[in-house]
Amino acid sequence: MSQLKHLNDRIISRVNVNLAELEFDTDDFVMNTLDHQKMLKFYAFYGITAHHPIYFHFKNSNIAGSYFLGKCVVSRSTIYKSDVRGDELKRKGDNIKCAKDIPLVEDEVINIKDSLLYKTLVHSNSHNPESPEEFGIRNTISTHYANIHGSTLEGCFLGPFSTVDLMNLHSCIVGEFSYVQVGELFHRQIEPGTVWVRSKTFEFKFKYPKGVLDEYIGVNASHQPRGIIYDFVSEKETDYERLFEVVDIEPVKAPESSAVNRYAVIKPKTEIGENVLISQRAYLENARMGNGSNAQENTYIVNSHLEGMNVTAHGGKIINTVVGLKTFVGFNSFLYGKDDAQLTLGKGCIVMPHTIVDIDEPLEIPEGRLIWGHIRSAADLSSNTMALDEIAGIRGSQSVGNMTFTGSGQDFVEAFSSRIEHILEANGAYYDYESKEMSGHAQEDQQIAFNTLQPYRSGENAGIYPSIRIKP
Amino acid sequence: MSQLKHLNDRIISRVNVNLAELEFDTDDFVMNTLDHQKMLKFYAFYGITAHHPIYFHFKNSNIAGSYFLGKCVVSRSTIYKSDVRGDELKRKGDNIKCAKDIPLVEDEVINIKDSLLYKTLVHSNSHNPESPEEFGIRNTISTHYANIHGSTLEGCFLGPFSTVDLMNLHSCIVGEFSYVQVGELFHRQIEPGTVWVRSKTFEFKFKYPKGVLDEYIGVNASHQPRGIIYDFVSEKETDYERLFEVVDIEPVKAPESSAVNRYAVIKPKTEIGENVLISQRAYLENARMGNGSNAQENTYIVNSHLEGMNVTAHGGKIINTVVGLKTFVGFNSFLYGKDDAQLTLGKGCIVMPHTIVDIDEPLEIPEGRLIWGHIRSAADLSSNTMALDEIAGIRGSQSVGNMTFTGSGQDFVEAFSSRIEHILEANGAYYDYESKEMSGHAQEDQQIAFNTLQPYRSGENAGIYPSIRIKP
Repeated sequence: MSQLKHLNDRIISRVNVNLAELEFDTDDFVMNTLDHQKMLKFYAFYGITAHHPIYFHFKNSNIAGSYFLGKCVVSRSTIYKSDVRGDELKRKGDNIKCAKDIPLVEDEVINIKDSLLYKTLVHSNSHNPESPEEFGIRNTISTHYANIHGSTLEGCFLGPFSTVDLMNLHSCIVGEFSYVQVGELFHRQIEPGTVWVRSKTFEFKFKYPKGVLDEYIGVNASHQPRGIIYDFVSEKETDYERLFEVVDIEPVKAPESSAVNRYAVIKPKTEIGENVLISQRAYLENARMGNGSNAQENTYIVNSHLEGMNVTAHGGKIINTVVGLKTFVGFNSFLYGKDDAQLTLGKGCIVMPHTIVDIDEPLEIPEGRLIWGHIRSAADLSSNTMALDEIAGIRGSQSVGNMTFTGSGQDFVEAFSSRIEHILEANGAYYDYESKEMSGHAQEDQQIAFNTLQPYRSGENAGIYPSIRIKP
Repeated sequence: MSQLKHLNDRIISRVNVNLAELEFDTDDFVMNTLDHQKMLKFYAFYGITAHHPIYFHFKNSNIAGSYFLGKCVVSRSTIYKSDVRGDELKRKGDNIKCAKDIPLVEDEVINIKDSLLYKTLVHSNSHNPESPEEFGIRNTISTHYANIHGSTLEGCFLGPFSTVDLMNLHSCIVGEFSYVQVGELFHRQIEPGTVWVRSKTFEFKFKYPKGVLDEYIGVNASHQPRGIIYDFVSEKETDYERLFEVVDIEPVKAPESSAVNRYAVIKPKTEIGENVLISQRAYLENARMGNGSNAQENTYIVNSHLEGMNVTAHGGKIINTVVGLKTFVGFNSFLYGKDDAQLTLGKGCIVMPHTIVDIDEPLEIPEGRLIWGHIRSAADLSSNTMALDEIAGIRGSQSVGNMTFTGSGQDFVEAFSSRIEHILEANGAYYDYESKEMSGHAQEDQQIAFNTLQPYRSGENAGIYPSIRIKP
């Protein structure tokens, strides 16, 4: 126990040093969430397939509820509920698109050093051209349901349900339910409920009013989450228990071209189409998953129908909703139809990350729209949606409701569309069963072997693991 | 799949080369037991505690149903249902008693190279003074419920329920239900049902008549076991299933000074005293385990009472029996009382390994006796038991029933008694709760963390593991 506590304390104090100039102290949050006694009971698991080049190396880590696919180095780290999922790491010979193409001289690794993450998800690969072979995270604290997606991160604090996407953060605080995808940030504090996308040629910015945010995701003085979204996920927690209690679980019925992770909750009346990917800790209940659709980690799809080629990004929640063909649902979005108030999204829409649609009457959103912010009824559509075609025409600056767009609308729409295509491809949505071509996660993640690791249970190393090195 | 099959085939052919001069071909046995499809579903688990210095290193191994405690090196091996239990490995600085004392210059390791074991148990440490720091096993095939206990082994074939104890075997065949503890054997074939103990100053030899052996443990043409003992263990196999199905299991009630392995089957009305050790895959039903008693791996204790300080060596079966204080039950013994025919063993008896007592009327065996061979009723006692005092008086040669004893009876009794003391000490039977002194397995094995490993599930490496290196 003493070693584990010592490890945690050291990392917390390092994060505090990084965040000192922002007058932010993480002690209070950590004291209220880290339960050392409970941590002794955690175990880690990692996934191995024939398709992912592996090189795990953990050292003295306390890692729980995790799976690692692909190369990974971890050192003296406490990681909990994390998916350090290296299955999109770049490989030797790949080219990084930059001013000049940079060819990779070796396989990329994830490298998490001396780092306490807590309830987070770490994914994808490094988007930092300065370190294309290393996706490195250090001294960072992440809270409930936070997402780290392809980033360099050092000494940061990520609030509940926040997302850091395709970017590099250094000594930053990201407020609850904020989404940032803005390149590089140094020593910044992002206010809660900010949705901020910035590239060289455009910027999208939205901020939830404080009152609205509090209702869905608020935090108390010690950064513990509360609100409608937190309640929604909390009440489903017990459904996950059995997944972790048994060693082998009966497989879910799915076509040969689709993958259903054995750590996903699949409840009755769920139907799974071709080339579908259901990731770890996805939650499906009475869900119709059309061909080429996916449910990524921490997504919830309940009483809903995804018509096909749909991406549900990490943490997306789709309830009593019909999602049209190729409509994209971004990170942590909360599409909250009711039994008697169905939400219908037309085809080819883009639901921005961290969007909330919470309706009490049936609502239909037409095809080809960008959707963001907070929608309670048809009356909100004009201030929280916009036709993609219309956005593509923007040059300069335009405000709609609480959203401000600046720069090239054309570039924004193109960037988004090509990212969606990339995700569909990577997930195997375009897999051709006959030729076996265009395979992706849906095909490659079918035969995962899971290895569970438990830490020392007594002595001063209780809660700490032996040093484990795994090579192909 | 192909890699796993290739690995197995190579080792089988090596064993066959070793055994060629004995005109023995293992193909037939292996073809009838090794199920490659089934092997893909196996997983390995290893135990870690704060008390055992570990250094596991498996390479491309298919290891199932195992636990490893203590240093271990395995390479390109198929091991199944094995307990490669290194918790009695010698440590740096220990002295080997020989003509001269040999101090160990480094910790002992188990080293199993290129080796296919199959359903065996590997324990303890090297008793070969030529290699005191290495307990090495190579190219060996062991069958159902065979025991390897502290030995060098190369290119051997061990029949069902056979035991190789504290000795060095090279290119040997050990027949079913044979027990050998005879120092060094080269290129020998041990006939089925032989119980043979030999030291510099004494020799004990017993052989089961063929007809008797067939009834309890026979084998068919491809060395598959059958008979009463095999049926007894087979019908209990389903009771073990749940142990392997769940990740965490509710702990069994036991005093703080005792250890109950979570992979043991504990059925109702079992009572566990102080300083008791219940090892992995022990089976207890309506068993009263007196203070300081133990049930080692693969033992069965049913409707029985062990009065205290009792060793039940690997594979011992005690049914409807009262076992007196400090009475020892050797490897694979089958004490088969019936509901209406209780067996009572007085205190301080030694039941030789591979003894069968199968009674239909109640039977009482007085205290202080050596017990061997096959006993069906009181009438058999004179030809299958002898007072330990009487044995201690033997010098020269004496035959009793099918048993022949030669040499110093005094040495024999002393050697056995001191070994029993050593086992009790090692198991923690003499642990003092107040002073915390004299601790052993019963105290040190309480807080085992179990790690489960699954092999690749698809591709040409299906059934093979990644290379795994585990250090403290």
